[in-house]
Amino acid sequence: MSGRKGEIDVRAKNRALADDNRQLLRKHGIFALNLIGSPGCGKTSLLERTAAHFADRMAVIEGDVKTDLDAERIRTAGVQAVQIETGGACHLNADQVGRALNELDLSDIDILFIENVGNLVCPSSVDLGEDVKTAVISLPEGDEKAAKYPALFVRAGAVVINKTDLLAHLEYSLERAAGDCRKLNSKVTVLPLSCRTGEGLDEWFAYLEEGIAAK
Amino acid sequence: MSGRKGEIDVRAKNRALADDNRQLLRKHGIFALNLIGSPGCGKTSLLERTAAHFADRMAVIEGDVKTDLDAERIRTAGVQAVQIETGGACHLNADQVGRALNELDLSDIDILFIENVGNLVCPSSVDLGEDVKTAVISLPEGDEKAAKYPALFVRAGAVVINKTDLLAHLEYSLERAAGDCRKLNSKVTVLPLSCRTGEGLDEWFAYLEEGIAAK
Repeated sequence: MSGRKGEIDVRAKNRALADDNRQLLRKHGIFALNLIGSPGCGKTSLLERTAAHFADRMAVIEGDVKTDLDAERIRTAGVQAVQIETGGACHLNADQVGRALNELDLSDIDILFIENVGNLVCPSSVDLGEDVKTAVISLPEGDEKAAKYPALFVRAGAVVINKTDLLAHLEYSLERAAGDCRKLNSKVTVLPLSCRTGEGLDEWFAYLEEGIAAK
Repeated sequence: MSGRKGEIDVRAKNRALADDNRQLLRKHGIFALNLIGSPGCGKTSLLERTAAHFADRMAVIEGDVKTDLDAERIRTAGVQAVQIETGGACHLNADQVGRALNELDLSDIDILFIENVGNLVCPSSVDLGEDVKTAVISLPEGDEKAAKYPALFVRAGAVVINKTDLLAHLEYSLERAAGDCRKLNSKVTVLPLSCRTGEGLDEWFAYLEEGIAAK
């Protein structure tokens, strides 16, 4: 809902601010992931599990339309977290992330997670200065999500497929889901896992360690 | 992402077109619902189940970012369906719905479902000319969704809580979920059900028959 000129200005400004964020993160040697997925796919649960592994090597920026329930969950897991309440907006922008970065102590951090607003559509086209967009989908959503919402999956460097513990109770083909992701991006890393049982988390941690080592 | 003036123009134009849609639907005595929920919450499954009950008394307008998978599912269920592919846009607008209405035979229809793009945030503030916004959420998404995404739940006349068949396999409080919905809108109708087992569908059909009778 916008005039074309206004939209281009806002996009150019966002891109410049994202580049500032990227430069700051590079200076500190921090590997940054932008987590994008629908409400309830398990983004915060994944961060809780990841906090137990990376502890004080990680920090989190939490985006929510409303409430700071998620930042509270992350802090309870013993990790630095800054909440951004978007007040209705459907995605984070680079300005908000830049302000949140100023509130974090980045000196001893190896990895930063930016948990975007729960939304499989809008956040995918907005650069926040991250290294990798990470899509988080989950089994109960159905195995055709990449085909139906391709904009994210074309851009995502990794796709986490959460809630594999429910496989026995659902009709879901991990092969179809992973195949659709690879059709849209042949270089994507697909990581099926369960935040509830811990299945597949070792592969997720190994993926993150590789990202850190490459910085 | 827009200039303020452009946004106001677009909103005013959308409202006028929504009023046109409302008038057309009223002329035909059609009860119209705008289904809003995250990707994979079960909007299309709910419509398949509903098609088996209402058969040729109903029609469907299907909104998707990409693919016509959902309209195909609805047509297979024996019901008139028009697909709107938004090509990236995160919600339907009243203009698209007006064009789709022109493609439907409305003469013998009692009820129209507009299945919005899978998104719990953006579609909630865009009037399409419907009688009722119906939120569709599902157990695997977690029981705190109304609190975290209030804009939809303040406006929704009904909330369907789908996938109750998974209750034994999840930590989910139906009381908390329903209570949060009622806190945001004391008049809301909350309908827990399972599209898989059929549990709760009779209450959903009764709700729809009441809506039809009131037109």
